[in-house]
Amino acid sequence: MLADLGDGVTVRRAVAADVPSIARLLADDFLGAEREVDPTDPCYRAAFEHLDADPRQLLTVLVRNRVVVGTMQLTTIPGLSHRGALRVVIEAVRVASDERGAGLGSRYIRWAIDWSRGAGARLLQLTSSNSRVDARRFYEGLGFRADHVGLTLSLATRSG
Amino acid sequence: MLADLGDGVTVRRAVAADVPSIARLLADDFLGAEREVDPTDPCYRAAFEHLDADPRQLLTVLVRNRVVVGTMQLTTIPGLSHRGALRVVIEAVRVASDERGAGLGSRYIRWAIDWSRGAGARLLQLTSSNSRVDARRFYEGLGFRADHVGLTLSLATRSG
Repeated sequence: MLADLGDGVTVRRAVAADVPSIARLLADDFLGAEREVDPTDPCYRAAFEHLDADPRQLLTVLVRNRVVVGTMQLTTIPGLSHRGALRVVIEAVRVASDERGAGLGSRYIRWAIDWSRGAGARLLQLTSSNSRVDARRFYEGLGFRADHVGLTLSLATRSG
Repeated sequence: MLADLGDGVTVRRAVAADVPSIARLLADDFLGAEREVDPTDPCYRAAFEHLDADPRQLLTVLVRNRVVVGTMQLTTIPGLSHRGALRVVIEAVRVASDERGAGLGSRYIRWAIDWSRGAGARLLQLTSSNSRVDARRFYEGLGFRADHVGLTLSLATRSG
């Protein structure tokens, strides 16, 4: 276990058995619904194996009473800029739709901030789709600054 | 060598001897000037060692006639979202101020797009400070979409 957030809620490293639950959370979302497939599809298990073998990756799940109710991926990136600062990038944050609005997401992100500081990171960063209208305010409320534009290029459609 | 871009310009993986040149490029910038220190400071060499030992990292330099005139860091990140898509994140892009305006930056980014596709990535992403007013247009001209907000949290100032 990585952290006990109280009220029966814990954060732990994801294991292979969590993959369908995580894939279900990724799809239970207006953007995810368009791009994800069946949670038992082997593509998710294959991606998990890659991720789990990478010491710079930490895929986590948020658990309440043994049920996976959230997920978040943390990537630690070394670099020369900012005087050789280590940074942590957060990706793929989800909290189950029926668990939202109770502050669980805030507690999960606050845990990620503490974890990143403990890992020696000097910067924590993430990007959020412009279409997630509440997300920017949510992260700003936790101390983040919306000071960057996030640019993406899809390579899949071009390579055929 | 990773690529020959023509006109005596090549892209190659950075080696330890490139570290001061890279640190100089990072500092030769209105944002970098505020946050970087002397290019020979040991912090840069230490960060390079971390980076070089990580198989998911590729720190590159752009070279013209044996002189380092640019740098870019590519991080390959596995993940479950987007049906288990591998993504590449670009960080710390710089082209020497006296080399700008001649299309060198575009050729460098186009190389990164090709490299990412060759590495099996389905997404290429980066963030650019809102204060870099021309950067967004530059990347949009190369096919990127400014569809995300980039949020950052500095951990250094808070931990003392």
